[in-house]
Amino acid sequence: MPPATSPSAARLPTPLRGVVPPLCTPLTPTGDVDTRSLRALVEHQLVAGVHGLFAVGSTGETAHLSDARRRTTIRTVAEAVAGRVPVLAGVVDTSTARVLDQARAAADAGADALVATAPFYATTHPLETADHFRRVRDGVDLPLFAYDIPASVHTKLAARTVLTLAADGTLAGLKDSSGDLGALRRLLVELRAQGSLDTFSVLTGSELTVDGALLAGAHGVVPGLGNVDPAGYLRVYEAATAGRWDDAAEEQDRLAALFGVIEAGTAAGTGAGTGTGAAPGMSTGASALGAFKAALHLLGLIDCPATAAPQTPLNEEAVRSVHTALQRAGLL
Amino acid sequence: MPPATSPSAARLPTPLRGVVPPLCTPLTPTGDVDTRSLRALVEHQLVAGVHGLFAVGSTGETAHLSDARRRTTIRTVAEAVAGRVPVLAGVVDTSTARVLDQARAAADAGADALVATAPFYATTHPLETADHFRRVRDGVDLPLFAYDIPASVHTKLAARTVLTLAADGTLAGLKDSSGDLGALRRLLVELRAQGSLDTFSVLTGSELTVDGALLAGAHGVVPGLGNVDPAGYLRVYEAATAGRWDDAAEEQDRLAALFGVIEAGTAAGTGAGTGTGAAPGMSTGASALGAFKAALHLLGLIDCPATAAPQTPLNEEAVRSVHTALQRAGLL
Amino acid sequence: MPPATSPSAARLPTPLRGVVPPLCTPLTPTGDVDTRSLRALVEHQLVAGVHGLFAVGSTGETAHLSDARRRTTIRTVAEAVAGRVPVLAGVVDTSTARVLDQARAAADAGADALVATAPFYATTHPLETADHFRRVRDGVDLPLFAYDIPASVHTKLAARTVLTLAADGTLAGLKDSSGDLGALRRLLVELRAQGSLDTFSVLTGSELTVDGALLAGAHGVVPGLGNVDPAGYLRVYEAATAGRWDDAAEEQDRLAALFGVIEAGTAAGTGAGTGTGAAPGMSTGASALGAFKAALHLLGLIDCPATAAPQTPLNEEAVRSVHTALQRAGLL
Amino acid sequence: MPPATSPSAARLPTPLRGVVPPLCTPLTPTGDVDTRSLRALVEHQLVAGVHGLFAVGSTGETAHLSDARRRTTIRTVAEAVAGRVPVLAGVVDTSTARVLDQARAAADAGADALVATAPFYATTHPLETADHFRRVRDGVDLPLFAYDIPASVHTKLAARTVLTLAADGTLAGLKDSSGDLGALRRLLVELRAQGSLDTFSVLTGSELTVDGALLAGAHGVVPGLGNVDPAGYLRVYEAATAGRWDDAAEEQDRLAALFGVIEAGTAAGTGAGTGTGAAPGMSTGASALGAFKAALHLLGLIDCPATAAPQTPLNEEAVRSVHTALQRAGLL
Repeated sequence: MPPATSPSAARLPTPLRGVVPPLCTPLTPTGDVDTRSLRALVEHQLVAGVHGLFAVGSTGETAHLSDARRRTTIRTVAEAVAGRVPVLAGVVDTSTARVLDQARAAADAGADALVATAPFYATTHPLETADHFRRVRDGVDLPLFAYDIPASVHTKLAARTVLTLAADGTLAGLKDSSGDLGALRRLLVELRAQGSLDTFSVLTGSELTVDGALLAGAHGVVPGLGNVDPAGYLRVYEAATAGRWDDAAEEQDRLAALFGVIEAGTAAGTGAGTGTGAAPGMSTGASALGAFKAALHLLGLIDCPATAAPQTPLNEEAVRSVHTALQRAGLL
Repeated sequence: MPPATSPSAARLPTPLRGVVPPLCTPLTPTGDVDTRSLRALVEHQLVAGVHGLFAVGSTGETAHLSDARRRTTIRTVAEAVAGRVPVLAGVVDTSTARVLDQARAAADAGADALVATAPFYATTHPLETADHFRRVRDGVDLPLFAYDIPASVHTKLAARTVLTLAADGTLAGLKDSSGDLGALRRLLVELRAQGSLDTFSVLTGSELTVDGALLAGAHGVVPGLGNVDPAGYLRVYEAATAGRWDDAAEEQDRLAALFGVIEAGTAAGTGAGTGTGAAPGMSTGASALGAFKAALHLLGLIDCPATAAPQTPLNEEAVRSVHTALQRAGLL
Repeated sequence: MPPATSPSAARLPTPLRGVVPPLCTPLTPTGDVDTRSLRALVEHQLVAGVHGLFAVGSTGETAHLSDARRRTTIRTVAEAVAGRVPVLAGVVDTSTARVLDQARAAADAGADALVATAPFYATTHPLETADHFRRVRDGVDLPLFAYDIPASVHTKLAARTVLTLAADGTLAGLKDSSGDLGALRRLLVELRAQGSLDTFSVLTGSELTVDGALLAGAHGVVPGLGNVDPAGYLRVYEAATAGRWDDAAEEQDRLAALFGVIEAGTAAGTGAGTGTGAAPGMSTGASALGAFKAALHLLGLIDCPATAAPQTPLNEEAVRSVHTALQRAGLL
Repeated sequence: MPPATSPSAARLPTPLRGVVPPLCTPLTPTGDVDTRSLRALVEHQLVAGVHGLFAVGSTGETAHLSDARRRTTIRTVAEAVAGRVPVLAGVVDTSTARVLDQARAAADAGADALVATAPFYATTHPLETADHFRRVRDGVDLPLFAYDIPASVHTKLAARTVLTLAADGTLAGLKDSSGDLGALRRLLVELRAQGSLDTFSVLTGSELTVDGALLAGAHGVVPGLGNVDPAGYLRVYEAATAGRWDDAAEEQDRLAALFGVIEAGTAAGTGAGTGTGAAPGMSTGASALGAFKAALHLLGLIDCPATAAPQTPLNEEAVRSVHTALQRAGLL
């Protein structure tokens, strides 16, 4: 187990609570990290009052970033934040040895905590996954969050794995992007029963059900849409912590309507939109991340809305639909 | 469109709200429907105050029941209920012509409303699925609910399909057993925006997140665990409708702990339990339904805990773990 | 175990070998079984020299047929065949009790052997699946084939289950529509090792790799495309049994090119075809079965190319592409 | 497009044909690349007469190897081969920018050709995947093979993508590990129709159906089991190219029986084997790769049978079953 007095751990509240947006990674037209825009985005988030930031996660297009660009991103965020809130960094790679290399680089770049998935590409067994997290935690002296994201990793973390690694201190928390709030409820009940909830942080990545997740006892949220509207998520969180659940739900409803922008790209030209062109041929991820970046660009926060190759960019019709959605949500 | 004055439709509130348990189907040791136990179970539910009952759904082992036993079950439930609450009946079959046959039989047996899935076994397209629901609704003069259960059907209902069929009156409601509360949130927001929520009933089948679903605007819940503890789900519902969300969450937590019984069978002898025997070799469904029935038997509500063939029965260790869970939940 | 002298079993060669097309079910414009066209299709197959026929399988749209239409289909085929070749009948339903009802009806309608899948809709465990096949076999005195079709059933039959049920005589054979020729190869090697291959019939449903399956030791093929071109599959089979493997492969190549018709519907209007209209909105199954039926109609074998509701019909562009494919294959 | 005269391309036959084993990566007990054993394994393969070698593919545990160990592996293989056969190198990573970094490193380490999958972890669309391959090919002057491995990547390469990239010269070939020989047959027919088969190499990764794949027109095979028994695969290939298909099938049958070793780990202690201990808790991949390495160790080819962390190692019972399988196959 790591010493409780490590400087980074000291920077991370136990448990971490609140709104921790997974930052988009602004890029230049040639695909480099646009550090100026990234710093502006960080400042926008801190002004809104977020409780932490998550760099180079899935929303940060980590799968599409080279190691050099991942490092630049983490370093830029850590320097811009300057200790005001904890900076979590994704260490996404296929298995233990590679994740350890990512983890060492992230620590060196200034991360306060790490967020790792189970192994992917190769098959894995829950006992192997547990061993993976133990090895990553032992290799780098930073608090470690498990990242449960079956849409990308194609396995779901077993509840028993999380319970064991919460109890023995391997994990500092969980970022649950499984979308399975029922499984999360059971996990929260079991974590509470074993006395882990005072130290182990449960964050939901499901940005459409933050009110319900907080009602179920989650500590916070990592909302991709929080890039675009951090203030909205802070209102949900504050209403929830004040017990004003109907207010929380009303604000969550507004955000759920805004979340429709993620289909801006895939709907454009398909007849689901208003256009008449051919369907654009893009992945759901490219549509969602393209829409978030188009929104940030329309809001004047980043210089260029480009997503990383090989993601198909939004077309003009799609960008117009993002513009309309921002107006409806009262953001433009 | 059906006439608004049909007697059955009159028996169904618009929209249907509250707790509508999906009844287990008690069986005799030889696999026939145990109508005496079924009537006792119905009465237990009505005494607890449920707002409706759902017969021959997935929890009712409909996949394992012959047509004759399905009919006996619906007729027995309808007669026992005697109009006190609406009786919904599952009409689960692979495609339109077969579902129509099921629907006619269910109507004849006394159902007040029907619950149909999208086609399964053969592939289907959202436009074909919409056509399917329209043909079923046109063929039988009873309100029709769509049953979204990807774990069984292997497709998820498209939001656009539900929105269209809610707007044109084909569907009276949705039973959402997808477990995807985020998608349900978006759907609720869009149903509200198009003015459907006053007539179209949204019921969640996710028994672990009823508080969150009601907070998001769902009208009610179809909880399998409600067979065992209907009073618990009524307390969740009543607290939620009274705005006492923390009470709702606390009761939901108690139910979430009890829900662990569904693993009684699969965990027995695997080392996850306390036994030393070999793992029993049963499906997750057989474990869950076996545990519900073991609980009903231990509570004295049904005469025989058997599930239908070919489901492996719970072994003694598993039944003991159900007994322990009932004691912990304060039901024994 | 059934008596070896049962009349039906006597009609079934042990093991069954050769080409056993899964018959399309011709329908009238109103969706009834077109028994006249069905008899013509049967005669066309027998003239071509097929070794058996498989009625109301997936290609026969069994999922979309009512019980009454399934019975009519089996009876019509059995009467038209009049004992010249064995008639296998699908008994597709969700679980044991329902499959038993299907099996009794199929036996009564004149089937010589039954083809059943593992349970679907509800979850199943390999031991439950084995119990399922045993109960079906015990309930009806006809040889039983296991139907491995994960695309529909969403589980793959475990090799151990097949090996056990082949050894103890529960199963007379396997129709493998899994598309996994590697798994089939291992199964064939193990069946041979345990001495089952002289009595247990292994038929592949993969119509694009019949040469390879026969080379691996399979006894025959159940080719959907055999509705359209039975002579082609007979040439593949005859070349293979004569050891003329290059001839078998060449004919299989011709059939593989013709098989492209299955995308006639889904490609029409998408830009993959030559048209400019919108994509038709149909399932892959509706496209494939619509194309087979369009071909049978263009060949003058059936009166109406309609598929069962709710499948979207082929549009004119799609039918033209089927026409072109038949010309290229030398069938028109 | 790269110049046809590039030295590396010159080293790669057009199309590449024959047996190209995906090398296991021998490790030391501490997880470093055991370069001595790796050179011995290479020599064993060359003596057997293989037509090429594939380094750091899935069988080479690439997902579990750090960048440094990937480079060491490729360099060691390239130096040991010394131009006698072409060396293909896997460049497995989540998306374009990262694959390009892998590709540059592989080229620098001496690879003659590269093997890349579609993007994974993030979602992708066929047009984005095509763009991905074009960017990788443009970035590094080496022939590029597409690696279709849905078990790891969770999408299957679209036939149209392969056909387009074969026609325009982006791809030099395909390594098909999809297990879908039917789809491969259709692809081969279409590649032949567009005149690509003389330059575009189709290699199957399905080691149980090499005879069928060659009969269907594939150029060669990349068999994981070829690490253990390269001579067997060469016999299959030679019999097939000589038209002695029954000999090819017989040898393939022997290899299919030997292939059962991949379950050595997962079967040990489960009751499927002969032991009585608990099931070992390992992934199917760890079992398969552990068995291949145990076999290489038992054959005296590598010094240590360890697989990379976090894969659970084979237990003694599992190793004994590998030993027995080698004896039965006549290799020990």
